[in-house]
Amino acid sequence: MLIQTLIERKRDGGALEPVEWHGLLDRYLRGDVPDYQMSALLMAVIWRGLDEDELIALTDAMLASGARLKWGSADIARVDKHSTGGVGDKVSLVLAPLVASCGVAVPMMSGRGLGHTGGTTDKLESIPGFRTDLTLGQVQAQVRSIGVAMFGQSDEIAPADRRLYALRDVTGTVPSIPLIAASILSKKRAEGLDGLVLDVKTGSGAFLPDLASAESLAEVMVRLGEAGGCRTTALITAMDRPLGRAIGNALELEEALQALTGEGPADLRELTSRLAVEMLLVARVSTTPADAAREVEEAIASGRALDRFRQLVEAQGGNPAIVDDPGGLPQATEVELFEAADDGTITAVDPRPLGRAVIEMGGGRRELGDSIDHSVGFVVTARPGMQVAAGQPVASVFARDPDGIEVGMQALRAAIRYGPADPPLPLIIRRITAAGREQP
Amino acid sequence: MLIQTLIERKRDGGALEPVEWHGLLDRYLRGDVPDYQMSALLMAVIWRGLDEDELIALTDAMLASGARLKWGSADIARVDKHSTGGVGDKVSLVLAPLVASCGVAVPMMSGRGLGHTGGTTDKLESIPGFRTDLTLGQVQAQVRSIGVAMFGQSDEIAPADRRLYALRDVTGTVPSIPLIAASILSKKRAEGLDGLVLDVKTGSGAFLPDLASAESLAEVMVRLGEAGGCRTTALITAMDRPLGRAIGNALELEEALQALTGEGPADLRELTSRLAVEMLLVARVSTTPADAAREVEEAIASGRALDRFRQLVEAQGGNPAIVDDPGGLPQATEVELFEAADDGTITAVDPRPLGRAVIEMGGGRRELGDSIDHSVGFVVTARPGMQVAAGQPVASVFARDPDGIEVGMQALRAAIRYGPADPPLPLIIRRITAAGREQP
Repeated sequence: MLIQTLIERKRDGGALEPVEWHGLLDRYLRGDVPDYQMSALLMAVIWRGLDEDELIALTDAMLASGARLKWGSADIARVDKHSTGGVGDKVSLVLAPLVASCGVAVPMMSGRGLGHTGGTTDKLESIPGFRTDLTLGQVQAQVRSIGVAMFGQSDEIAPADRRLYALRDVTGTVPSIPLIAASILSKKRAEGLDGLVLDVKTGSGAFLPDLASAESLAEVMVRLGEAGGCRTTALITAMDRPLGRAIGNALELEEALQALTGEGPADLRELTSRLAVEMLLVARVSTTPADAAREVEEAIASGRALDRFRQLVEAQGGNPAIVDDPGGLPQATEVELFEAADDGTITAVDPRPLGRAVIEMGGGRRELGDSIDHSVGFVVTARPGMQVAAGQPVASVFARDPDGIEVGMQALRAAIRYGPADPPLPLIIRRITAAGREQP
Repeated sequence: MLIQTLIERKRDGGALEPVEWHGLLDRYLRGDVPDYQMSALLMAVIWRGLDEDELIALTDAMLASGARLKWGSADIARVDKHSTGGVGDKVSLVLAPLVASCGVAVPMMSGRGLGHTGGTTDKLESIPGFRTDLTLGQVQAQVRSIGVAMFGQSDEIAPADRRLYALRDVTGTVPSIPLIAASILSKKRAEGLDGLVLDVKTGSGAFLPDLASAESLAEVMVRLGEAGGCRTTALITAMDRPLGRAIGNALELEEALQALTGEGPADLRELTSRLAVEMLLVARVSTTPADAAREVEEAIASGRALDRFRQLVEAQGGNPAIVDDPGGLPQATEVELFEAADDGTITAVDPRPLGRAVIEMGGGRRELGDSIDHSVGFVVTARPGMQVAAGQPVASVFARDPDGIEVGMQALRAAIRYGPADPPLPLIIRRITAAGREQP
């Protein structure tokens, strides 16, 4: 197998055989295929796409490059959720303990911050002592014991995906629907899931802003999940404004704690509930959406969901006291209110400047290995459609120094708009299953 | 300048600024841009192309990466020819001394064999002692002394092109008209030319077999040459069958010697004369095609062209005795006739199997650094349209062992066809200048 001829075939619009994808990834991981050939092939994939057989083969090959969780018939159903990433998206922090408290096992692997979006493992690490670097053995034991584990991707899981992702990140080869789908599904399938719920974001703060791309990605991932024997449902949801009010690691964790007690922003609670319902359905723990919704509501109202989060924190070495007293989370030294400049109606709150500002303020990584300040970020009460008066506080900036405050104030000035703008998207736009698309 | 954003811009169909192309190549040559970013960018260029400003900037940047010949007003006009490569194309061996003997300086840089085609420097090195590894200083001195030098590309000239070419060769990023044009023109412009004549091949044995691609490449190169202040003319010529009869290094050299004395195959003599006429015209040594043709004919008939070749061989360390006695060239130990299998009409002689067989027989390189056997190859008298009788010899195979003979016989069986086939192309198909296209 001459790598060059595979590149040429893809370049000319042809397809690689499954055995060629497997061979290619094996040899790449062994160091027999240089990065410069792989990156040329990846750009050809961006150009020409992958057909269904190639997509399945690539996903299988990435999955096969690492270890996977093996469950037995005595184990309860496993379900996970994946979000394509957004600003203020702390849903996983609420969802994993919530769904686990409804009798579904949730072995949830999450990522670090990426681009302008935060990462669930970074948010969890706001909790003093919390460790996300679990081995697969630890994950399995913890899921069997308390029904939930939240962990980062290690070298055990889909190492070919890790290597490819790092290469894609620096070669302009990230935004390809089949490559994104294969990357996500190869990791999720390593969890040995019965069901998977996908939250595919659309709007200006999403990686794929246009709705057609989001739908296409969702459909590809649903097909790919089902082809791997995993019941898969996707929701297309709004990321034309931040989700909830908090943006930044500890601030988002605190807001997630509110949602676990039935408080906090309505959009966060609504999206979390809808995703929880979908998880109970694919787990076959509930048979109708209405049953599932009652179950979810009861888990919050009874305090079971919050209890499960407390158990999770304890199991992963974190200080469980923060669950009842978020004052134990890292606190920013500088806080400043941001006031509306004029009387009028806010028409848009653009997530991207805010997400990027968190990184600049020290709350995200510019390079792998950077340490981060969990305390910094925003609380943004401004929403599209909100009537404001000049001088009215519409956001707060949390920073570690006056420079950070300035960065945050500038980002808010860029993000909050008053002029003509597209109307905000509905929070939940589409539901996509193997059977097709529906309005939710 | 973040390389990744340049890749992304090209991927999305945008253009890089001239200063970005220069910066990119500088940093690539210094080792600050890794091959894996460059190869992804090159694939994006294959996909999206280059606009005119980018093409000029890339060519300039590759030219600027190395040294160039500097001539003064006391020097006579310099003209070179470049062929896109074909099987049996020994035109350069005849043309350089021929045109030099007409009072034009010819500093001719040539390549090694590439893919299924041979290289002029390999053919010259059939001559015992002949050296093609001249420094630019040696080239300049020799051109001033005898009007002609034939040399290989060294690290002095367009090193960025050398690095890029080696990378393109293994990453499926060779067949891009703008990349091919920039590569050729950056090297030719380093010779400090007043004029350039391009022989762009079309047909099954050419790198770009279809006529539309050949025309497009020719037009791009003519524009690029003229933009660099070099009068440029291109001919589109036939490579649906081998040029002349000899294929293989020493065999082609011997055939070139025949053409220098006005003998040898008619197609080789015709194409060489036409290219020589174009060179005299761009050199402005002749003012009309008829004048130039008379000049060329006289140079051959008088023996001046052959004398100039003898001087060239002597100047570059070769044994000039081979000019009068080609028996001094390397001789194959095994020779076998190939006979027509049936009575009938030969409809096609496909150059590719023959070119590839020469490499397999040891007459070309599979990898850089392979040593080659100059003696092996073919003499093919079979031509499209030729009536033959069963048992009639239509080719000879020259090899170093019986295995080589077998490879050669098989290649001839694949190359020589009797069934329905496209009619052969006219030898010279188009003439392309800054003013447009003409039928020749």
